[in-house]
Amino acid sequence: MTDFRFELLKQDTTSRARRGRMITRRGVVETPVFMPVGTQGTVKAILPEQLKEEGAQIILANTYHLFLRPGHERVRRLGGLHRFMHWDGPILTDSGGFQVFSLGKLRKISEEGVRFQSHLDGSHQILTPELSIAVQEALGSDIIMVFDECIPYPSSREYVAESTALSTRWAERSKKARSAQDGSALFGIVQGGMHADLRRQSAEQLMEIGFDGYALGGLSVGEEAERMYEMMDVALPLLPDNRPRYVMGVGTPENLIEGIARGVDMFDCVMPTRNARNGTLFTSFGKISIKQARYADDDGPIDPDCGCYVCRHYSRAYLRHLFQSNEILASMLNTRHNLHYYLDLMAQARVAIEEDRFEAFRADFYRRRNDGGLSV
Amino acid sequence: MTDFRFELLKQDTTSRARRGRMITRRGVVETPVFMPVGTQGTVKAILPEQLKEEGAQIILANTYHLFLRPGHERVRRLGGLHRFMHWDGPILTDSGGFQVFSLGKLRKISEEGVRFQSHLDGSHQILTPELSIAVQEALGSDIIMVFDECIPYPSSREYVAESTALSTRWAERSKKARSAQDGSALFGIVQGGMHADLRRQSAEQLMEIGFDGYALGGLSVGEEAERMYEMMDVALPLLPDNRPRYVMGVGTPENLIEGIARGVDMFDCVMPTRNARNGTLFTSFGKISIKQARYADDDGPIDPDCGCYVCRHYSRAYLRHLFQSNEILASMLNTRHNLHYYLDLMAQARVAIEEDRFEAFRADFYRRRNDGGLSV
Ligand SMILES: [Zn+2]
Ligand SMILES: [Zn+2]
Repeated sequence: MTDFRFELLKQDTTSRARRGRMITRRGVVETPVFMPVGTQGTVKAILPEQLKEEGAQIILANTYHLFLRPGHERVRRLGGLHRFMHWDGPILTDSGGFQVFSLGKLRKISEEGVRFQSHLDGSHQILTPELSIAVQEALGSDIIMVFDECIPYPSSREYVAESTALSTRWAERSKKARSAQDGSALFGIVQGGMHADLRRQSAEQLMEIGFDGYALGGLSVGEEAERMYEMMDVALPLLPDNRPRYVMGVGTPENLIEGIARGVDMFDCVMPTRNARNGTLFTSFGKISIKQARYADDDGPIDPDCGCYVCRHYSRAYLRHLFQSNEILASMLNTRHNLHYYLDLMAQARVAIEEDRFEAFRADFYRRRNDGGLSV
Repeated sequence: MTDFRFELLKQDTTSRARRGRMITRRGVVETPVFMPVGTQGTVKAILPEQLKEEGAQIILANTYHLFLRPGHERVRRLGGLHRFMHWDGPILTDSGGFQVFSLGKLRKISEEGVRFQSHLDGSHQILTPELSIAVQEALGSDIIMVFDECIPYPSSREYVAESTALSTRWAERSKKARSAQDGSALFGIVQGGMHADLRRQSAEQLMEIGFDGYALGGLSVGEEAERMYEMMDVALPLLPDNRPRYVMGVGTPENLIEGIARGVDMFDCVMPTRNARNGTLFTSFGKISIKQARYADDDGPIDPDCGCYVCRHYSRAYLRHLFQSNEILASMLNTRHNLHYYLDLMAQARVAIEEDRFEAFRADFYRRRNDGGLSV
């Protein structure tokens, strides 16, 4: 069994971007990395083999969803999540904290944990740090997240301070609750809302407890992008260089570029997959909505600069037709292109850091978006 | 440009089953063959490459749907249906006749053709034999069907006789309307309802006009299976040996086996793909409904005798979870298995005919269904 570790391979000198490598028990992950989201034991509308073909190294699965359906004990009996969903690469599981707050009904927070009603059948449930860890271990997660409260935005400073302190106590209980000695990793989650001092305090307390990696939680919850970057600027420099840094639930291509420039190693977001199903496609010149009538006779690919399976074989006109016709293939093809875009952007960023030119890469990224927006 | 032709390779001596080969301008089709249905320019929930991997040789596209959306002139401008949908194998197009009757609103039949309202936007449309052929040629179809009326069941003998005579006149107009000298084929469609003498008359009149292949239409419209087989028994022996025989819109695995035993070369049906999306899966031991609770902890494949991608990598428990969770991947995986089942059944039938043991193959097909039904 490989113990989890992180190697810092290269520090860009034109920015705070860094090139690293996570060694997990299920293989190596080159960072910076984007993790496609597989909420219910599948990244929606794409096969595991296709995910790999488009460059996915690691995926995220949602503890809240799998806990409720099909149930973590069932998944364990069926050989664990990897076998269940036919994905043999690394899996990171969130703690369920975020989704209890976004989906669970009649939530009640106490020192013990969160009582809530299932969004599926209304059944009464409780998630605690101990149960969250047990669920993630039963699933066979390679990177386990501590249980935390995702703080609503905006919230009073008092609420943020109390919630952050509670999340810190839950982080400590999460670490104690670990039973598996199997080489999986445990990450802490820095909270503190939009308050620099509370972010700092949270980061310091988590480092004292000690984790295999550190995430920033409670971002991309409705705040301005500048505020989010400010919180990254506050918290990331405090974190140890030899641990991966993960900004949870973020975000747009711009957010990823800005995050990398500030030293982030890991991202996840439903944006490429969810937008794909809504007909919104990411390109080097910005987003396009494939349902627009202007594409009805457009024989070109989504993005002439994209080398993905979809751009090699299908026209915008066809993709528009599929979307208009409500065909499942629309979701399949759009998902594949969007994930390729995100994963390829990260691959390009990694090369730029290796070649010590991330700042130029970032400038070029924005230039292409501005140029292309006019001509397409 | 290859001219369309059909080679009769082998006549089974234990039944009327026959092993043939269609040479189309876009490649060879080994018969008996099942054609997956790609209604709106996509076989739902599966990629062209995956279709080929599961053994598809030719697909069917629907003239009615593509005429209304995205429009045949648009498809022509975009390089034809093959390029549009990224399928380079043969395509057979139906004439639109069947779907005008099943989907069109306020239909009015005249000698000229059928006036109807689009099911999409209520627009007033007319389909005539000439337009149907023009649409199919614009799409770039490799096998074009004559325009016909699909007779409702039950209908009076008088109605059937008049409609069949009209369809024969439309068949003649369809042949005259052909403009492409491009090696594509034109098939006639035998009507005559459930009346043996009218079927015979229709077949004879169509043979007099002369077509590259002959279809039986107006079957599987609600009649008993025995009635359908009776009509096959009446009409098929009249048709020339050196032309392919196609029973349209049929059917269940049992229907296919019975059709082959009676000398049918070609089938199409939405059943494997539509049922897949509804969670009904075909197996060597009969149909199963994957949504049943009994499969929640079932670690086995859909069918232990199936070698498809799905059965090699996923459990019934996972497929049930996907279906319960309303995941797109459920449709994708179920479709792939069901099409594999249909296509593999035909491949097995072809081998059985080559080895002059179709009758034994048919008996074995029924035996396995009866045995397996008890144990699963
Ligand atoms: Zn692409
Ligand atoms: Zn299978």
